[in-house]
Amino acid sequence: MDSFDFYSPTYFIFGKERERETGTYVKKFGGSRCLVVYGGQSAKRSGLLDRVKESLEDAGVHTEELGGVRPNPRGSLVYEGIELCRRKKIDFLLAIGGGSVIDTAKAIAMGAVYDGDFWDFFTGRAPENALPVGTVLTIAASGSEGSPDSVITNEKTLEKNAAEANCLRPKFSVLNPALTESLPSYQTACGVTDIIAHAFERYFTNTRDVEITDRLLEGVVLTMLHEGRRIMTDPSNYEARANIMWAGMVCHNDIMGVGRQQDWNSHHLEHVLSAKYDCAHGAGLAVVMPAWMTYCAHHHDPARLAQMATRIFGCQMDYENPLNTALEGIEAFKIFLKSIGMPLSFAEIGADPESISELVEMNHIGDGKTGGFVALDKQAHYDIYELAAGREN
Amino acid sequence: MDSFDFYSPTYFIFGKERERETGTYVKKFGGSRCLVVYGGQSAKRSGLLDRVKESLEDAGVHTEELGGVRPNPRGSLVYEGIELCRRKKIDFLLAIGGGSVIDTAKAIAMGAVYDGDFWDFFTGRAPENALPVGTVLTIAASGSEGSPDSVITNEKTLEKNAAEANCLRPKFSVLNPALTESLPSYQTACGVTDIIAHAFERYFTNTRDVEITDRLLEGVVLTMLHEGRRIMTDPSNYEARANIMWAGMVCHNDIMGVGRQQDWNSHHLEHVLSAKYDCAHGAGLAVVMPAWMTYCAHHHDPARLAQMATRIFGCQMDYENPLNTALEGIEAFKIFLKSIGMPLSFAEIGADPESISELVEMNHIGDGKTGGFVALDKQAHYDIYELAAGREN
Repeated sequence: MDSFDFYSPTYFIFGKERERETGTYVKKFGGSRCLVVYGGQSAKRSGLLDRVKESLEDAGVHTEELGGVRPNPRGSLVYEGIELCRRKKIDFLLAIGGGSVIDTAKAIAMGAVYDGDFWDFFTGRAPENALPVGTVLTIAASGSEGSPDSVITNEKTLEKNAAEANCLRPKFSVLNPALTESLPSYQTACGVTDIIAHAFERYFTNTRDVEITDRLLEGVVLTMLHEGRRIMTDPSNYEARANIMWAGMVCHNDIMGVGRQQDWNSHHLEHVLSAKYDCAHGAGLAVVMPAWMTYCAHHHDPARLAQMATRIFGCQMDYENPLNTALEGIEAFKIFLKSIGMPLSFAEIGADPESISELVEMNHIGDGKTGGFVALDKQAHYDIYELAAGREN
Repeated sequence: MDSFDFYSPTYFIFGKERERETGTYVKKFGGSRCLVVYGGQSAKRSGLLDRVKESLEDAGVHTEELGGVRPNPRGSLVYEGIELCRRKKIDFLLAIGGGSVIDTAKAIAMGAVYDGDFWDFFTGRAPENALPVGTVLTIAASGSEGSPDSVITNEKTLEKNAAEANCLRPKFSVLNPALTESLPSYQTACGVTDIIAHAFERYFTNTRDVEITDRLLEGVVLTMLHEGRRIMTDPSNYEARANIMWAGMVCHNDIMGVGRQQDWNSHHLEHVLSAKYDCAHGAGLAVVMPAWMTYCAHHHDPARLAQMATRIFGCQMDYENPLNTALEGIEAFKIFLKSIGMPLSFAEIGADPESISELVEMNHIGDGKTGGFVALDKQAHYDIYELAAGREN
């Protein structure tokens, strides 16, 4: 196990109707002039926005609003939010939504206290501080409610970049699983896939002797397989949604990612896919991940894939040829993804296999390599997209 | 899953030699006059105390010392520490040691800012604030390095009581697994047992639909079985110690105990045993836990015990009679405990089966009941001690 620092000071408020306490927590964490960031009309229609605003008002917190965050959120709204923060002397950002809304709020939080372009933080500069952010989560997927990360798309270049810093960890997050019940089933399944990806991107590592984090990550995926299936047949099952919501947080606040090399190649390969085709991030991951796993099983470490296959998917170990077990595990993963309605090929997300060269170029690899478990050069990126397109798979 | 709040703002500094950074973190978290609390001579002999003091000096932190904390720590040293804090205007407590030292520091931290008797906090009063506490952990066991708990023994009454509050969570904890390498093997095994108990006291619950926390707790115990055996045959195995150390923290900071009823009967039943016979807490748990499980399997919920047996101990499920599987799992647990040198009966910890009535009285149950999974009355306590004594087992 490698040395590490771990710090997750977010206060979690979990359970039915707990969004009614939001105002108390904004106040507790120092907010008096709050910018409420949200997405489309659903937060308004459902009455959630009103309930939260009432709670803010009861707590004596002044509020401003910024709606219109889209999936795969763009930088333009961030600039707008930063300008609003300065003009209205905002001292707290409250995100009501899923990862796109929370990541937008985090980007605004950094930019509002910085003289330069906020995009600097998405191209390598570490933010020194940020306005405090709180969240009311409505989609279990991104883990952004407990993470130090933000992902924003640059609309000019279609680059989808990430920023990471402990000052981006939310001060508090309200997790009411019931708020996710109205989500379309496809979006729920995308969230399930994203959470599994967050576990797997940590699970596949070259660091030896990481049994505790291995076992915890396996626990997350086992839970997602069970609850993911349950939620598809019974979308209003609060209990399944509660398990998925907590799994999404613990899996991505990094308590089970510490002390090990991680590999974010699946996310990396996916980001250009959703940037170009504007597909859901989870759907893109469902297409890319099994292809990436197949590549790794053949070219790098079939034993670790076999561990996934036996411990998570209940495959029998082929002791003479672990690659067989590895491939059987990947197959089982694909069957699961299909069972919850996820796509498995380029065609299913409207992506053109002829665009693979372009996608590879969008990754800006040059002569370098990406990832941790397997270092992928340009050719490897190409091969994995080919597998994902379904042409070699 | 029940509603809950979760807040774990401790900063963890994990890895080899990281105690050399202690001073930086005391300073970072506001300490300028620090009371260093430790146990016996080993911290001095090993040079650890000097290394940490050097780091405090380098950071410009004034230090005072309070040594002599014993296992099953007593209140008298807490009073001494409180007096010292006031006289020397201490603003930060640094615990160097295991659970006994950390819990003593936490008790001093509460008492130093309170006009009444610190014992009030161990008999039901909630502390409003406390001096900040940091830790340098030398034994993986109690989980106190990341928990809101403190356990102190009242030497007049031999009551071993607990206090719990978020203000008792350490500001930072330094976790260097190498510091645990010099521990006698028996003490290491006691720590392993204590960590497993912290998982099981959460695992056995009547709350339904807690798959995510179930799976995470199972992950902790599976890790402890694997690494516990490894550490016994290879005590200087840093990797095994690293996995155990992180498992001990994640298991007890409550991230996997939330949203479910817990059951602390094994700890409750054990506390009077170690208070009366001054045996190691882990050793007392090894004696009590399987007896408590056996009682629960027969009288309450064999299915949950069978889940432990199949998922953790790899037993085959007896679908017609889950009790058989449950008992097989408990047997496997006992075999594990024995394999790491833990006692399984009263005789092995020098406890007298004739004292059972006295032990039951010490629990102050009256006409009430204790615990969550199974509510235990006086007779049940008696029966479980009888099983633990080995008379009915």
